[in-house]
Amino acid sequence: MKVNGKHYRSLWWVESRGELEIIDQRWLPHDFRIEALTTMQDYADAIVEMRVRGAPLIGATAAYGMALAMAQDPSDANMDKSWDFLDRTRPTAINLRWALNRCREALRPVAEGNRADVALKLAHEIADEDVDICHSIGQHGLALIREIAAKKPVGEPVRILTHCNAGWLATVDWGTATSPMYQAFDAGIPLHVWVDETRPRNQGALTSWELGSHGIPHKYIVDNAGGHLMQHGLVDLVIVGTDRTTRRGDVCNKIGTYLKALAAHDNGVPFYVALPSPTIDWTVDDGVAEIPIEERDAFEVTHVQGLNADGKISTVQVSPNGTQGGNPAFDVTPNRLVTGLITERGVCAATPEGLAALFPEMAKVSG
Amino acid sequence: MKVNGKHYRSLWWVESRGELEIIDQRWLPHDFRIEALTTMQDYADAIVEMRVRGAPLIGATAAYGMALAMAQDPSDANMDKSWDFLDRTRPTAINLRWALNRCREALRPVAEGNRADVALKLAHEIADEDVDICHSIGQHGLALIREIAAKKPVGEPVRILTHCNAGWLATVDWGTATSPMYQAFDAGIPLHVWVDETRPRNQGALTSWELGSHGIPHKYIVDNAGGHLMQHGLVDLVIVGTDRTTRRGDVCNKIGTYLKALAAHDNGVPFYVALPSPTIDWTVDDGVAEIPIEERDAFEVTHVQGLNADGKISTVQVSPNGTQGGNPAFDVTPNRLVTGLITERGVCAATPEGLAALFPEMAKVSG
Repeated sequence: MKVNGKHYRSLWWVESRGELEIIDQRWLPHDFRIEALTTMQDYADAIVEMRVRGAPLIGATAAYGMALAMAQDPSDANMDKSWDFLDRTRPTAINLRWALNRCREALRPVAEGNRADVALKLAHEIADEDVDICHSIGQHGLALIREIAAKKPVGEPVRILTHCNAGWLATVDWGTATSPMYQAFDAGIPLHVWVDETRPRNQGALTSWELGSHGIPHKYIVDNAGGHLMQHGLVDLVIVGTDRTTRRGDVCNKIGTYLKALAAHDNGVPFYVALPSPTIDWTVDDGVAEIPIEERDAFEVTHVQGLNADGKISTVQVSPNGTQGGNPAFDVTPNRLVTGLITERGVCAATPEGLAALFPEMAKVSG
Repeated sequence: MKVNGKHYRSLWWVESRGELEIIDQRWLPHDFRIEALTTMQDYADAIVEMRVRGAPLIGATAAYGMALAMAQDPSDANMDKSWDFLDRTRPTAINLRWALNRCREALRPVAEGNRADVALKLAHEIADEDVDICHSIGQHGLALIREIAAKKPVGEPVRILTHCNAGWLATVDWGTATSPMYQAFDAGIPLHVWVDETRPRNQGALTSWELGSHGIPHKYIVDNAGGHLMQHGLVDLVIVGTDRTTRRGDVCNKIGTYLKALAAHDNGVPFYVALPSPTIDWTVDDGVAEIPIEERDAFEVTHVQGLNADGKISTVQVSPNGTQGGNPAFDVTPNRLVTGLITERGVCAATPEGLAALFPEMAKVSG
């Protein structure tokens, strides 16, 4: 999508230097910094430190990491070592492992001499596929938004609440949850987006930055506010992304998503989850019981980053000196609270049957 | 309660100077600043700017404000003018109006020459009563905690989640939601408190500071985390305060309380509200429809205050430049989500009958 009128993806390959460039998202929305990843450690750091973040983008980044590994040493041993090395970076998002598995399976039969080329082509393919998938998600989500708009007086905005950043910054382009918003806005449907701040890391600021860059009206709200807004009829639908969705449709996403799903359910507000199919973990049924939830550094909770009075990016400590913080990074929304899943193949119920009907080949393999 | 070993109330009268002193809570937990209120404007500013905050403390402060008004000009006209002036400071908490009404009703029949003295005595009385009420709430809440502790293996802590600061800083002493915690801890029951940060103003930092000062084990968590913790069996009960509770037991409290009530309900976790009876609005039934919700300055949402790297209190902007924020300060939890109300007269169901049984004289007057 566009940044100051220029089109960017969230990562891109620089052919001339043989390097991947990313937007270092730690400094957004306050500073737009581009960084090249040149070593395997760079790739791991970029994922662990959330310079790149969002399940689909993590997957694409890992694929380029495998390409670098194959350029350095195309042996089976290095392939397995690099798989482990990159897989350890984040435990919750499934796209990471999906991309790594896809690379390893594709590369295993390839002669060592060709592996670097094949791996790079595959990384490009995964990135391009993600763009296509997200565009299709947007088309299916657009239809849902159009239905709601049709029931409103002309000119009244469809009010959408979203949590975290499932925007183009979390994917290669378009975003998942935001793709329907971009496409609805471009189609002339009036929108108003409630953007959850999403403590501890305030990815809502990224979403506000994205939406603002595209001209979509929105308000930044604290994570506590959504229930009140829904109680008062100020939210027409919720759309969020996901880091891992189980075969029965339980949705693991950024911490706090579950609370919004409960509020949506309590107030009859449709709650949709936008997901590319690589985010589905066909090996897991019960998300609450089975998905490992990353516990991140409590510093993210006790401290907040922003622009200080001098316009410099800085960090303040909000809790008292010495206070311990707890920082589970994700939660799981049970499928009973999910109105529907918006995938690249269409919208389905958050049930084993719903997902299996859209992705029969995947449901069969793992069934 | 104690600050560095010395006992404080959240406000106190300085006889020698004829002035009220308060703790300016805007700088807590990072700086402990005491301030004298000497003009009517000081009183209004202290409430509006949340130098004092919390329904019971606002009520007590307003009573001292009326005492100052009567010392300046004990006429009926000034009494009514001061009532209006102070009533306008915050729209949601009912204790403010309750205290102002109590003062005006008591002062109306008093000769002008005696009003200053009577008003000051009444303010002292309201403050002392609040301490007694909060102590009694703690006794009744202690019984609930003791019951839960009795079902656990010896030494395993009772895990309580709380939202905002319904601590001694929000009252004159003891707190409402925290009073059971202080009394349980003092009775030797092992506790662990999950402290919701409570954006936008991070009153969780005040709660952490209070609990830390008293030695009660706790962790500071973002507002998004509670649902996940409850899903995983890590919360035994929730206790929160309230700014206004309706005659049928709907609970208006700091924004986000409703989301925690939903999560507690979804996971079978008892959800209790601790309230002094002046917090009950006997004139209101349906809290969602009838209670005015204060919309505060969006600056509180777009900016966060804390200690910077130099140890100075400063503010950072978290959202992008120019982003609009929305800032509803309270929400209403419907009575169906409330397990029980902990009052100074005992614990009751959040129903018209439950409240009427404990406070028959009030229910009758307004029925």
